Order: sequence, then C-alpha cells, then structure tokens
Amino acid sequence: MEQKLWFSSDYMEGAHPEILQRLFETNLAHTVGYGLDEYSEAARQKIAAAICREEACVRFISGGTQTNMVVISALLKPHEGVIAAATGHVNGHEAGAIEAGGHKVLALPGKEGKLDEKAVRDYVRGFYADENHEHIVHPGMVYVSQPTEYGTLYSVSELEALAAVCKDYGMRFYVDGARLAYALACPENDVTLKDLGRLTDAFYIGGTKCGALYGEALVFPAGKPAPWIDTFIKQRGAMLAKGRIAGIQFDALFTDGLYEKCGKNGIDQAAKIKEALKEKGYPLFLDSPTNQIFVVMENEALKRFAERVVYGFWERPDEDHTVIRLATSWATTDEDVAALIALL
Amino acid sequence: MEQKLWFSSDYMEGAHPEILQRLFETNLAHTVGYGLDEYSEAARQKIAAAICREEACVRFISGGTQTNMVVISALLKPHEGVIAAATGHVNGHEAGAIEAGGHKVLALPGKEGKLDEKAVRDYVRGFYADENHEHIVHPGMVYVSQPTEYGTLYSVSELEALAAVCKDYGMRFYVDGARLAYALACPENDVTLKDLGRLTDAFYIGGTKCGALYGEALVFPAGKPAPWIDTFIKQRGAMLAKGRIAGIQFDALFTDGLYEKCGKNGIDQAAKIKEALKEKGYPLFLDSPTNQIFVVMENEALKRFAERVVYGFWERPDEDHTVIRLATSWATTDEDVAALIALL
Amino acid sequence: MEQKLWFSSDYMEGAHPEILQRLFETNLAHTVGYGLDEYSEAARQKIAAAICREEACVRFISGGTQTNMVVISALLKPHEGVIAAATGHVNGHEAGAIEAGGHKVLALPGKEGKLDEKAVRDYVRGFYADENHEHIVHPGMVYVSQPTEYGTLYSVSELEALAAVCKDYGMRFYVDGARLAYALACPENDVTLKDLGRLTDAFYIGGTKCGALYGEALVFPAGKPAPWIDTFIKQRGAMLAKGRIAGIQFDALFTDGLYEKCGKNGIDQAAKIKEALKEKGYPLFLDSPTNQIFVVMENEALKRFAERVVYGFWERPDEDHTVIRLATSWATTDEDVAALIALL
Amino acid sequence: MEQKLWFSSDYMEGAHPEILQRLFETNLAHTVGYGLDEYSEAARQKIAAAICREEACVRFISGGTQTNMVVISALLKPHEGVIAAATGHVNGHEAGAIEAGGHKVLALPGKEGKLDEKAVRDYVRGFYADENHEHIVHPGMVYVSQPTEYGTLYSVSELEALAAVCKDYGMRFYVDGARLAYALACPENDVTLKDLGRLTDAFYIGGTKCGALYGEALVFPAGKPAPWIDTFIKQRGAMLAKGRIAGIQFDALFTDGLYEKCGKNGIDQAAKIKEALKEKGYPLFLDSPTNQIFVVMENEALKRFAERVVYGFWERPDEDHTVIRLATSWATTDEDVAALIALL
Repeated sequence: MEQKLWFSSDYMEGAHPEILQRLFETNLAHTVGYGLDEYSEAARQKIAAAICREEACVRFISGGTQTNMVVISALLKPHEGVIAAATGHVNGHEAGAIEAGGHKVLALPGKEGKLDEKAVRDYVRGFYADENHEHIVHPGMVYVSQPTEYGTLYSVSELEALAAVCKDYGMRFYVDGARLAYALACPENDVTLKDLGRLTDAFYIGGTKCGALYGEALVFPAGKPAPWIDTFIKQRGAMLAKGRIAGIQFDALFTDGLYEKCGKNGIDQAAKIKEALKEKGYPLFLDSPTNQIFVVMENEALKRFAERVVYGFWERPDEDHTVIRLATSWATTDEDVAALIALL
Repeated sequence: MEQKLWFSSDYMEGAHPEILQRLFETNLAHTVGYGLDEYSEAARQKIAAAICREEACVRFISGGTQTNMVVISALLKPHEGVIAAATGHVNGHEAGAIEAGGHKVLALPGKEGKLDEKAVRDYVRGFYADENHEHIVHPGMVYVSQPTEYGTLYSVSELEALAAVCKDYGMRFYVDGARLAYALACPENDVTLKDLGRLTDAFYIGGTKCGALYGEALVFPAGKPAPWIDTFIKQRGAMLAKGRIAGIQFDALFTDGLYEKCGKNGIDQAAKIKEALKEKGYPLFLDSPTNQIFVVMENEALKRFAERVVYGFWERPDEDHTVIRLATSWATTDEDVAALIALL
Repeated sequence: MEQKLWFSSDYMEGAHPEILQRLFETNLAHTVGYGLDEYSEAARQKIAAAICREEACVRFISGGTQTNMVVISALLKPHEGVIAAATGHVNGHEAGAIEAGGHKVLALPGKEGKLDEKAVRDYVRGFYADENHEHIVHPGMVYVSQPTEYGTLYSVSELEALAAVCKDYGMRFYVDGARLAYALACPENDVTLKDLGRLTDAFYIGGTKCGALYGEALVFPAGKPAPWIDTFIKQRGAMLAKGRIAGIQFDALFTDGLYEKCGKNGIDQAAKIKEALKEKGYPLFLDSPTNQIFVVMENEALKRFAERVVYGFWERPDEDHTVIRLATSWATTDEDVAALIALL
Repeated sequence: MEQKLWFSSDYMEGAHPEILQRLFETNLAHTVGYGLDEYSEAARQKIAAAICREEACVRFISGGTQTNMVVISALLKPHEGVIAAATGHVNGHEAGAIEAGGHKVLALPGKEGKLDEKAVRDYVRGFYADENHEHIVHPGMVYVSQPTEYGTLYSVSELEALAAVCKDYGMRFYVDGARLAYALACPENDVTLKDLGRLTDAFYIGGTKCGALYGEALVFPAGKPAPWIDTFIKQRGAMLAKGRIAGIQFDALFTDGLYEKCGKNGIDQAAKIKEALKEKGYPLFLDSPTNQIFVVMENEALKRFAERVVYGFWERPDEDHTVIRLATSWATTDEDVAALIALL
C-alpha cells in the first residue's frame, strides 16, 4: 500500500530534530521548576534581543487557545471585550474559551481574515458616541493573527494603523502568532519581530505549529503587564511545573536561526505547490502568501486526490466544488512535494 | 566548585530516557492532531487494560492544575462544590483555579494530608440536615490525592469507604495522582490501578512528576463523562494540537513496566535516605512512605546542609527548627543519594 | 415653567396604583421568605392557569438582565452558546452579562429585530456539517424577544417554526418578554400566553416595564428545569429575601385583567400618536405595532421638540436627521398624548 | 384558631409604612431610569452626609448576596480572595456566589461570628512568608458583618485594628451591613456610620431587613472605585431600570431618623424578650446584643412553643436540646412581644 502524503496541517509531526537534540543534551541537568530555570531565562533573553526590548517579559504556555485565554483575561478589565475579525481564531475556533473567561468577542467583518483599521475605528467611535454605552461591553483590546487564519499577512503600515486606533482609545493591541514563523519567512512580509515588539502590548510566537513539540512564547514587550501575572497564569492552569521543557525548545528555536529555518521550509515548499497549481489551472480560493494554500477542487477530482493525499476540508462553495487547505511546514520534504505535484 | 545535590522536587530533570527515545523514533511519523492519533489511542488502550476497564475514556492534559480544573468543572453542576482536605492541592496550591472555574472547595480538616471517611460523612449528613441547605454550596465531589501532598497513602479500604459515601450521597469521587507512580511502587501501598478504575469517577495518572516531559493522563473509567467533554477540554485551553506528544509518552510509560520502574527508583532511593536519617537521629516531621521525606532540621545545621543540597522548604515549627522536604524521583541516582547521606 | 412631556421609556414612573394598593393591604401580614410565601404561590398559580400549564415553575427575579443571565446559564451546558438576533438585548445591551456567565452569544443578522427560522436552521445545519465543530461553541438555545427591541412582533407560526428548529437540534427555546404586556394587547398580535407556555422551554413575563415597581416572572412551563434551580438562583444573587414583594405584584397583575389593562393603555396611546405622526407626514423608521414608536426627525425640528418632550435617542441615519424613540406605557395619560400631538 | 406569633426573621413583612407612603406620593412623577434620578441622588446625599464623606459613591442593589458579589468582584483582582470568618454570610450562606464570580473565600475561624485582628494579621503574614505564595490565592480583602451573623458587634477599636491590617498589606476592607440598623440602635454599639465611612473601602447599609421592601445601599466612601463600576453593575445583573424605587426608599429611611427608628424598635423589643428569657432561666446560646436572640430550648418545651411561635432553627447542640433564633425588627409589635413572653 502506498503511503499517504500528509498536507492537512502543520502539527502532524514531532519537533524539529535540533530541538529534540537539545532536549536530549539537557535531559539530566537539574533545574528549578515553573519556568524560573536558566534555559527559560536564556530563551527570554534571546527573544527580548530579537524584538529589541530588553525589558520584555516572556512566558511559555502549552498551546495557542490557552495563551489567548490567559493574555485576554489578564489584560482586559471585567467590562471589556476584545475586537476580532469574525474569522479570528478566538471568535470561532476556541470553543468559547474567551467567553468562558468572562469576555465578549466583538466580532467585526474582516476581509480575507484581516481586520481593517477603518472598520475598527468606526466601531469604537460609534461605541463612544452611543449615549447608552455604559450598558454595552467596552472595546478593550484589538486581536489580530499574523498570519491570519487564511494565511494572509498584515503589512507594517496596517499594524501601525491598528496600534494607533488602540492608542487613541485606550485599547490594548494583541497579535496571535500561532504560525508566526511562516509570516516572518515570507517574501511578501515586511513585519519583523522588532515591529511586533514596538507595536503590541502582547503577542505570541508560535511553537507548536513552527517546529516545537508544544508551546508558545507569550511576549509582553514592555515587561510584566501586572505584578500578579504569574499567579494568574498558575490560576488558569497554564503554568507548567517543568517549565524548562518549553524554555529549552524556544532557546533552540532562537539559536542559529532555527525559527527562521523552520519558517523558510514551509514557505519554500508552499511556493512550489502554488506554482504547480497555477500552472495546472487550479483556481485558488484566495491568494495566501504563507504556508496555507486554499484550492478549489471539483468533487470528482477531489475523490481521486483523497486516495493519496491527507488534506484539510475548508468549505463547500457549491454542489460540485470543495475548497481544501494544503499546509506545509518545517517538516515538509522535497519528496512529498514532488509526489503531490505529480498528482495534480 | 562542587556541584549541588538536587533533592528539592521530582520535576527538576527532563524525561526518562526511554521516553525521549520513543519521541525520537516517532518524530517524523505523520498523524492527525488533537489526541485522535494512534499513539494516543494505544496509550489509552494500555491504561484501560491496566485498570481493567476497556471502556475507559482517557485524555492527556498538559499539567496537574489544568487537569484538576477540567475534571472538577466538567463533573460538577454549577451549584456544587468539591470536598477536599484543607491541605489538598486544589485548596491551597493552585492559586484559586477551582474557584476561577466557579466552584467552592469545601475544605475539611485532614490528618497527615488525608480525608477521613467519617469526617466526610458527618459533613454531608449535616449539610442535608440543615433546613437552609438550598442556600449553601452542595457537596458534589470528593477529591483526594494518592499519594497525598504529605506523601501519605490511602489504603484500599479507606478509598472504598470514601467511594461509598460518594455513592450514598450522589457525589463523584476523584483521585489526583500527580505522584501516582510513587504510591504504586511503595511496599506499604495496597491500592492498585484496578482499584482506582473500580472506585473512582475520574482520576489522573501523573506524568510530569513521574518521568514524562509533561502531561497527565486523565481517566474516566466508565467512559466519556459527557458527550461534550472534548469541546469542554478545548474551551478550557487544555486540548493540545500535537496531542500525540503526550500520547507517545504515556504509551512508553505503560510499555514494559516503565511507569513502575520510574516509581520504584523514587521509592528505593527515598528508603535509603530515610534509613540514614533515622540512624543519624534526625526527627521526621511525619512518616511518609513515598518519595517525599519531611525532616526537621536545626537551623544551624540546615545552613551548612544548604551549601550542598537543594531542598524544599516546608514550614517553620519553631524559631530554631525548619521542616524541609527532600524528594526523590525516577531520576535520582545512587551517587547523589550516597553523597547526600554522607552529609548527614 | 412648563412641565416636560415624558415619552422616553416605559419605566419612568412607579407602579400601577392597583399594585401599590395591594402592597398596602398586605404590608403587615407575616410570611416566610425567599418566595416560598402564599402570595408568590398564588401568583404562580394564576400564571400557570394563564398559560394552561398547571405544572409550571415560576420564579420572580428583580430585573431583565438578571433574568436572562439566570435562565441562560441554568439551561445551557458549559460548551453551549445562545443564538440571538444581533440586535437582541442579550447581545448588545447587557454589558456582557451572558459572557460573564461563560456563554457566547451567537449573533445572527435579524430583520427589524427578528430572527428568521431559515437563518437559524441554516446556521445550525452548517455548524453540524463542519468537521471541526467539536472546536466550536455549540448552539444550545434560541433567544428571541416578544416584542423585540424594535417593538416588532413574532407571529405564532414564526414562533412555532423556531420552536421546531430547536426541537430538531436539541436546543432550548427562550422568549424574553420584558414588554410582553404590550405585545399581548396589540391588535396585530396572535401569540397568546398559552402559546408561550406550549412552545418555549422558558420565557419571562415583564413586570418592570409593564406596571410593577420591579420584577419579572420567569416561567418554566414544564416545571423545574433542574432540581437545583433555586440554589442556582441564590448563587447568582437573584433570590430576594422578601420574595413576596414581587409575588404580590404579579398576583395583582394577574387578577382582574390588570396585566392586559396595563398593556392596552400603552398600545392605545401609541396608536393615537402614530396616527398623528402619519397625518403630519413624519416618516417612521420602522413600523412597530407595539408601544415603541421610532420616528425620523429633522435635527432642527428635534431641537424645538426637545424643549418640551423627553424622548429616547435611537440613531443618526444622516447628518440632518435623527431617529428618536417615543414610548408609551400603562402610565401614559390622554392629556400628555394630546399635548404631544399638539406639538407635532 | 389563634394566630401565630412570627419571630423567625426580620424580613417577614412589607415595608415601614412611611416608606410605602413615600412610594405613594412619588408614584406618578416621571424620572429617568437606572438610578440617575433625583430621588436616588437625594438618598445618596443624605447617606454621604451621614457618613461625613461628601464624595461618597452610593449604588442601590436589590439584595445582600447580589451586593456582596458585586463589590467583592469589583474590588478584587482575579488572583485575590476575600478573608472572612468561617461563619460569614459570604462563606456559608450564599450558595457559592463569591466563587461563582471567580474568587476564593479565605475562611478563618471566628469567635461568636467575629474575625480577630490577630488571626487576620497572622494569616496574611504567614501568606507572604510562604516561599510559594505566588501559587496561592492572595488575600485581597477583609470581609466582616456588622452586626455579625450571630448578632454580635465589632467595636470601633476592633474595626480600626482590622482596617490597619488591611492598610498594612494592601487589602481592601468591606463591611456587610445587612442588619446595620440594629447595630446602630444598640446601646452596646460604638461604631457610627461616620466610622464606617472613615474606615472602610466599601460597606452596605441594609434595607431589606431594616424596613424597606427590598434594596441595599452600597457605599464607596471615597467615591467611584473604578470608572467602569456602573457597567460592571449592569453586567452582573444588578442595575435596576426603575432604580428610583430603591432610591426613594433610602431617601425615606434617611429622612427624619427613620432608619434609626426602625433599628430602635428591633432592639427595644429584643431587650424585653431577652430580659424575660433570663428571668425565666432560659440559657442563651450566646449573648447577642442586637435583634437576634439565640435560645437553647429543651426539645419537649420547644414542641409546645412551636404551636404558637414561628421561630428560626439554628442548631442541635445535643439530643435533648435545640438552639433557636428569635428575631425582632422594625415591625415587631408590643402585643406580639407580650404574647411571646407570656408563653415562656
């Protein structure tokens, strides 16, 4: 039986071998727990350097939903909600985690996964103009993903505009970087880690989808957002006793350009696939520059394709077609990409 | 400079080498996410076999506080609270995680970390006898730790008695097994995994403190406690995209007796230390049969000891003495134990 | 100085004089507390009779937001959300009370304040068709207001259709009747209390806006929704020690047709105003058949109008116009209506 | 059939007739909603004057549990809990309302319902001395009741001592005054409203048990505790549309000494009963100086007593005795007290 080609997501394998190697090397060293160890501190310093904010507070959390819960609940006051694109991960794909923490997601229509500065500004201006706004959830934060859930990218000037609305109205600005490596490695991208350090109140650098066994690096560029942040992280079940395991992984990811390397492979492999799709005339659902490719396929062709390829279902635009997602990652091989292209 | 001897806790190193080895071997295999992979299923089957409950539902959660939050919130109705010993982890050392989930911890005085069946029964009987009990948090669950936070053990008959109170009053019974390996490996212990499968509504098999990089296996012996349990786990931020990483670790722990092996080393090394302490006349704060040793030390002696040993502070019984905790684990070496004993 | 004419809302005065009279008569009688008194039971029986459900459970809650919080949190499981029109009170005007209780409001576009059965069915069908729906908030309830926040009405067949979707997908159906008296008294209305008793899992009969000092009657037509409902009500701060005060008021409202009388005055006075507005050519923002009238006024005219009339601001459709709300109630007098019309 | 004598509680009747009278007089006046009306402002000013804090922020909430929920959640940060006597209302008789809001009640043993300054100080000092206190709920508030749930009183110096601990450790100080009228009217009492205004961060003046139909006046002596307090009150379901109804009642209570008068009647009638009990040799369970009397009765005698008297059950000290509670109030008549005494 032929092996399947796996392109359904970017979390289908273990970790980048250099990370595993590093876990091996450090395995029997003794450290204190709860992220107070020297590996976690080394990772923090490297991230702080990468974003040009020495004072940055960095905490390692096990996954993306948990990171979003923690940061949103920690930075919002009880009467505040978070503005997000309707397609934002916190709005539609976290099973209500934000609301379970007591906060409303104020969903605005986006475009290809992106929030528009004007739409945000209009919404917030309208909110404060409403005479009854004391009876309404206050907009306290703007949440965006970079890249977005559709693989699209914000430009620096777009992020600057959103940061400016936040500043004008006392809102915090938070960027979900679950797939940040693939944004950073993308030729179309002009947003650097330094920009995120300069423009946001918090953001996270995705590990799970970018080469780690698990873990996300939650960054507060200006330092601890509250003296009680660690007690809060503990309370929300997000503090790991063996905090070092995530610390070691991020230390490895931020050593010798490994994070960039992970991102680059995803982007390079995706580029080859996109080129082949275009050549062969497959319509793209939208033009994503990062590691997620959204292809419109005829249902009949998809049946044959599915015999060999594990893909992600996206949506059904009409009775005869299906939009599928193909994702590449740090782990995607030349062989698998070639085999995939041969099937098209 | 001499190296320190680390006896402060059981989460100071990485993972048992066989677990790391297994992560290496499986690293580039492709699987689906969210714990639906074949490694997680294999681990589930092995755990189900170990507890003699084929139908068991097993979920892998990143840490203990998170596991406690999830299971307590999932199994309690909104008006219910959880009975625990005042010294129980959920009452005092989780930064209010249970209350943040909306539930009161009904703390009863314990003895050496243990809840007494009679105390529980009296409390619950008194609750229902109170004419105003509709205005009071209802006892909906009994929580115990095996071993307890003081390293002590429940016997089978004690657990049976607690399970019986639960049955009599419609409460659920939940056992926190953060250090379960060390209970199972203890000569004084008569509680098997099968007993836990037979007596509890839920329990967890600790990984973080028993040899894994991270992760706890939450077990519902009778199967899914609710059809929505996975959505709930996702909502609480406790579902990992790369669920397989914990699955692989527990698969390894339940293969060829590795979990027992991890526990046994902790217990054997602790026994040697306890014997030496007794010989040299150190008073024990309490007689814990598992991998935590609570020693009363004179402050002056402790100062010298601290130059070489990393220990856990426990409490200050009077001005001249300190109770410290020494913990062993799967990773404790003969050499370190010998060096420690030489210092006594 | 001329007195102002108050048409801003339906909660600007005290209570219908017959209610106050009843409070006087019963004032020094002794009863037990917490709504277990005979007045509350009498009110329950009258409401049960009015909806033709002898078994109905009725609880009296102090206000509308609190009632919505209690019923939604009590009837939903943790992973469920409530479908509402985007303009629904729970979505936009309760400061996030539903989310503070842990549940997402699944807002769908409505039309003139109303949810469409087809839109709901499409949404829920789409939800279950999504392969990832275990990661998404489950639709567990449909919430509508009768009359709506725009004063519009559902017909019996529309409510039957919504109740049918709920039944098909295991959702609960809940009707917010903050202004129910004005719906019931409306000639265009064909939904009776009996229909609400037949079609819903819960609904509330508004008191605050329909003649009472305060209080809403929360009705579970099929009886107690859970054995613990009263403890839950207490936990959410919604159980009043002097429960009888609301009981007496609803007993009065459901004696000798007082609730109908309160509604009828609101509707009759609104009809006179609407007729006058049409005669004088004022455009209506929408055609509400109940006690709320939405008029488009030129800003200049509004300035003069505002010197005499207290109205509600609604929205600003363009730079030269304002939509205002005029509300009548049980307390609106012929004199005030005549004076208002004279100003038009 | 002889009528029963009602001494079970202080919320068995309606309102003091002067309050009802005031509701009558103001019934058809028009005002704005949500507590922004002139009656509520007048009440606020009178309360502010009574506590000698012109700047005081006062909000009227429907009941005691709701008030406690609102103020505790509003003043605590997420990681903080509230210290209370184990017998405190928030710990045992609010069905977990505080925990449902996410906060732990840190229960300390009390004496006759009272928290001891030394016990609080020791607890907080111990908390900060614990090296792991970042993993533990932080003490953020001290809650006491005046009078307590046992009818006992704090002296000014005791409250000053508690206020000092709060100041020393950055905790807020909150006094639950559900029965405050009876404390203020008590000859043994030396704590004035001015003292509460001087010493607390928040307290509430009970209405429900002290002569009002419903309602408690929540007082923040130093002014709004946060700019968002009203949105928060709305979010928790605690803002009443007809806010004026509570405002009018408190305006009446703070006019011409009505609140004092309500308290005095309760105290005077209780004094007569206590004297009679002592004369006739009934042992008191504890010596409460306010309007609650705790009597130890022989079960046989109690049976006969119960034929005529409605009392409150308190506890069963042994098989032959029962502790009952007799409560007086603003509504207790000379005739009923004489009849009760005749029965002893």
